[in-house]
Amino acid sequence: MTKIKEDLMLKTAELVRLTHEAKIPVMILFEGVAASGKSRLANELLLALDAKYTQFYATKTPTTEDLRLPFLYPYWKNLPARGEVTIYFRSWYASMLDYEEHGLKKEVYKDYKVLLEEIEVFENLLINDGYEIIKFNVEISEKKRKEHIEKTKENPLTRWKAEEFEHAIPKETYLDGMKKLVKATDAISPWTIINYSERNQAINDMYEVIIERLEAALKKQKKKKKQPADGKFTKNFTTDLFVDTEDDMSKKDYKKILPELQDRMREIQYALYEKKVPLILVYEGMDAAGKGGNIKRVRESLDPTGYEVNAISAPTETELSYPYLWRFAVDLPRTGHIEIFDRSWYGRVLVERVEGFASTDEWQRAYEEIKDFEKSLLIEGAIVIKFFLVLDKDEQLKRFEERQNTPDKQWKITDEDWRNREKWDIYLEASKDMIDKTSTEDAPWVIIPANNKKAARIKALKTIIEHCEKRLNI
Amino acid sequence: MTKIKEDLMLKTAELVRLTHEAKIPVMILFEGVAASGKSRLANELLLALDAKYTQFYATKTPTTEDLRLPFLYPYWKNLPARGEVTIYFRSWYASMLDYEEHGLKKEVYKDYKVLLEEIEVFENLLINDGYEIIKFNVEISEKKRKEHIEKTKENPLTRWKAEEFEHAIPKETYLDGMKKLVKATDAISPWTIINYSERNQAINDMYEVIIERLEAALKKQKKKKKQPADGKFTKNFTTDLFVDTEDDMSKKDYKKILPELQDRMREIQYALYEKKVPLILVYEGMDAAGKGGNIKRVRESLDPTGYEVNAISAPTETELSYPYLWRFAVDLPRTGHIEIFDRSWYGRVLVERVEGFASTDEWQRAYEEIKDFEKSLLIEGAIVIKFFLVLDKDEQLKRFEERQNTPDKQWKITDEDWRNREKWDIYLEASKDMIDKTSTEDAPWVIIPANNKKAARIKALKTIIEHCEKRLNI
Repeated sequence: MTKIKEDLMLKTAELVRLTHEAKIPVMILFEGVAASGKSRLANELLLALDAKYTQFYATKTPTTEDLRLPFLYPYWKNLPARGEVTIYFRSWYASMLDYEEHGLKKEVYKDYKVLLEEIEVFENLLINDGYEIIKFNVEISEKKRKEHIEKTKENPLTRWKAEEFEHAIPKETYLDGMKKLVKATDAISPWTIINYSERNQAINDMYEVIIERLEAALKKQKKKKKQPADGKFTKNFTTDLFVDTEDDMSKKDYKKILPELQDRMREIQYALYEKKVPLILVYEGMDAAGKGGNIKRVRESLDPTGYEVNAISAPTETELSYPYLWRFAVDLPRTGHIEIFDRSWYGRVLVERVEGFASTDEWQRAYEEIKDFEKSLLIEGAIVIKFFLVLDKDEQLKRFEERQNTPDKQWKITDEDWRNREKWDIYLEASKDMIDKTSTEDAPWVIIPANNKKAARIKALKTIIEHCEKRLNI
Repeated sequence: MTKIKEDLMLKTAELVRLTHEAKIPVMILFEGVAASGKSRLANELLLALDAKYTQFYATKTPTTEDLRLPFLYPYWKNLPARGEVTIYFRSWYASMLDYEEHGLKKEVYKDYKVLLEEIEVFENLLINDGYEIIKFNVEISEKKRKEHIEKTKENPLTRWKAEEFEHAIPKETYLDGMKKLVKATDAISPWTIINYSERNQAINDMYEVIIERLEAALKKQKKKKKQPADGKFTKNFTTDLFVDTEDDMSKKDYKKILPELQDRMREIQYALYEKKVPLILVYEGMDAAGKGGNIKRVRESLDPTGYEVNAISAPTETELSYPYLWRFAVDLPRTGHIEIFDRSWYGRVLVERVEGFASTDEWQRAYEEIKDFEKSLLIEGAIVIKFFLVLDKDEQLKRFEERQNTPDKQWKITDEDWRNREKWDIYLEASKDMIDKTSTEDAPWVIIPANNKKAARIKALKTIIEHCEKRLNI
């Protein structure tokens, strides 16, 4: 090893130990045509870093199973936690070009430009959350590249590898595509072009860029002050958005209508499955508004192999070491499946705003982030319906007391529920802001009066069925 | 809902809340032919349980990607953590029959009986670790089954589902196979046959079995005393197993041999890939014996897309909520890949025994568990090589002091290293016991004298290459 190279390597290793301690997550991408030398560069870097907090992820052509999940799903799944480093051998960029070249999920995307939108949203979200994204595009002279391929071909044990090179995306397509993508995304987080024609120089260049970026990231982190957490609530907030809490429903009607809707719901499930459309249902609302019972009626007649309920509690230690959207992004439904969120990513602008778990800047930024996140769900072909179950304050008290006094239901009521009740007005304001700021045409909030549980259930089922019938044309 | 059914449902829900609090993991399996009613039973149960700690896993026919991982991999991946419940809709049993029926990985297994061995090892391990496994085999009269299929066929929206029934494993093969499997595994954890011909009775039967089993599990848990943790060490332990710490190697020879072996190692990697053989390397040994540097020389010329280093630290909170083998079982290499463990599952009988993190019973049981675990890796076609790097006590001191005095290396030495050094003799005894009890013909321990780092690296590389050449016939 040349002396300079070793110094740079040691410096890099030291800085990564510091970013590890400072809990800065680092993503390092290597793009480049086949046989450009990016695997040698990536391995060089890997050797320098501590395996305890370093991951390596190689982008592959998606399998049929991968195509049933969102485009960025593999990258959400393989995101570094705070303090970790992930090295990407080819990334979402090569992946996008692969989708385009082979017409993957064409019927869903129509125009592959939407994938670039997804990428921009993804990188911006991560950067705002403190991620350091270092992007290398490795180039090589055609002469050197051919030499490399020939050498690999000579050896009978590695010949198949050389042949593999020729099955990837055509070189010209890749180079043209990357040129455009580098230009389009350089402003989000800058690219570095590395020329591998002279190996040692390339390695030095790589280390120098990483050193510069990590030093800057550490400096920025040091300067960062603790962010204030202010929910910015109005005194004596009132709204007429949630006035309508009552809907009528006789027991007799309910008993007649419910099974009919549930049968239809089961048919809808099969139709979603057949047409490969994922359905995402979000339930939010006041405590004791009946979210659980409502969800139960939706799923009661469904095939359990095709739906899942994700009941959201306080984040675990692991979940806290990722961006708040992570635990949802890794739990999205496959095509044709139904995912029901009993509470959701909206916790960011509800409980986290109210309790001060998110800084002012974080919860205020979240409205746009959430709209972007849902937009990417729509790009992926999902139906997204968001229910807000609204209850009046007296009815809540009645239900709390009933839970308290019924042995089978006592487990449902905790001190936290009573504490939240004391914050009724500010939860109301947070909910109002959320609905105002995140209702979009394709991912609307549906407000459901929930004083009458039966009526609320029927309304939710009818809403889901109508949306799906319209979308599925059945 | 009939009154009896509702009572049983509430009782079940209550018991699962208790097993959740008591941190008892529960697995509930549903087997049965297509259209036997098992999806209705499973959904009934799902509705009763709190989604916060309940998962549902549907066994599917393995994809090509699945076939690159061990047979039980999906079940390790979808294991309930302590306090959780996982409902399996078809399980490793149907999976085994599917492999057999379709001749999957035939060239690896030769005889599918080995999968039954894997299953027995898996269930026994879990049960010894406190898992409650409740297995249902759902039966139905042929008349009822046909009615169900006909009804599904009538509706245009569900017709494809009915047709799917006929593409599964042939009914007779499944029934015959399950009969044998139920008989073979009833003693590990008992099966319950449920007849679904009368729906409400079937539901009641299901709840009654679950109630009985969970009550027993809770009672057992209550009676359980805190297990003593005694490493059972001998006073003034000595062994001549680790006397040989020196191997000679001149700088000149090293500089000549190393690159040759590394080039060969790269060829071996391609050959493993082509022949789809996974290679698992385990590194254990004294602190500062040079495991990291040794691993570095093995991976230095490898293609980073085909190997991974897993450096083991103290388990995280999540890892602690599973059996100790879990974090390794979910991180095994795909066919053709290399996984290098820098420390490993042997922590159970080393640090966990020494520090009292495992009870006497747990670390004593672990020798057999580990042998069984490695046997299942071999069944899956892996090459397993385990290195123990041995250093003498004076050389360790010299290396510790050098680390202390070299600014670039200070991060490598911690107070814990010094504390471990004080326990030199008992680590020695634990290591000796480990090697005596877990060296098998196909997964041998290779003891590497490590006072001379260069010689140690050459020996490890040569060992790996020889084993692989022999196995791959190259």
